[in-house]
Amino acid sequence: MNWDNEKKCFLGKMDKSKKGSIDEKVIPLLQAINAHSDYYTTSSCSGRVYFWRGTGRKNETEWIKVSHNLIDEEFFALQEKQKSGLIWLRFEPFIIHVACRNLESANRLLDIAKKIYKKSYILSASNKIIVEIHGSEFVEMPFYQDGDSLFSGSREWLVQFCTKKLTENWKKMELFLLLTKKI
Amino acid sequence: MNWDNEKKCFLGKMDKSKKGSIDEKVIPLLQAINAHSDYYTTSSCSGRVYFWRGTGRKNETEWIKVSHNLIDEEFFALQEKQKSGLIWLRFEPFIIHVACRNLESANRLLDIAKKIYKKSYILSASNKIIVEIHGSEFVEMPFYQDGDSLFSGSREWLVQFCTKKLTENWKKMELFLLLTKKI
Repeated sequence: MNWDNEKKCFLGKMDKSKKGSIDEKVIPLLQAINAHSDYYTTSSCSGRVYFWRGTGRKNETEWIKVSHNLIDEEFFALQEKQKSGLIWLRFEPFIIHVACRNLESANRLLDIAKKIYKKSYILSASNKIIVEIHGSEFVEMPFYQDGDSLFSGSREWLVQFCTKKLTENWKKMELFLLLTKKI
Repeated sequence: MNWDNEKKCFLGKMDKSKKGSIDEKVIPLLQAINAHSDYYTTSSCSGRVYFWRGTGRKNETEWIKVSHNLIDEEFFALQEKQKSGLIWLRFEPFIIHVACRNLESANRLLDIAKKIYKKSYILSASNKIIVEIHGSEFVEMPFYQDGDSLFSGSREWLVQFCTKKLTENWKKMELFLLLTKKI
């Protein structure tokens, strides 16, 4: 199957993410990239805050509560059974995977993306050429241990912090959307 | 300058890291990679735990206290002036940058590295071909705010957690060292 057919076939498939649907905030970016004949997007997330537990490996990680939108203090309130074991709070920034027609088009995308996202690189260059682009800022903090809170700071401050991170993250996506017109 | 001269020139230069010297734990891996005619290492870190403050951007980040070795509870004790503002505790796993002769040698290194490190990719493929390989596990937690501790959990537990992460991290490096013989 040639590249154009692969693109057509891939974009015809259903969304397979844990979330079960594509983030609204990332749709304009997906449309802009997919409108370009040298690229198609294979996965993406506009950024999220979530509680999780487990080893961190793919099939050993349970997502307890997730938000792709701004949160308030209510978000930190988990039910008793959700708080057993060690519960982590994680902030993940925007991420996108883009299949590229060839190495030249991958380098062109990287040059543009790196103006905003230092964390842009080629994930695979042998079979398919996939570029991964993501924001730099993460939070990964132990939050509950067997029901006890491990964070003794102000939850109001933590809400404000997450609000700032998510808002900056979405602004960068808008800038990146503008830059994709130049690829 | 051709690739072999670039390698010779680069490896002749002094270490320019913040630390000022190369981690002992990473030296066998650097030697194994640099002994191969298709590769040379441009930077590396064997993993570390540190306190920092600032924006997180390169020139706006102050490193307050760093350990590349196992820590004990004493590590969390900062002087008063070190605790002003918002202080983060970060765990970063092993990371290495490897310059590769061509795309084929980069793909060969990636195939080997991905057996252990899912986070392996080509950072740049236009001018120089650089492969970045790093561990997957990070911690990034707010720890002090204007002198007050934000972590109310057991510090003994946190020491054990860091010990486990660093030890696993070093074991993976040993496995990776064995695999580099097969590149």
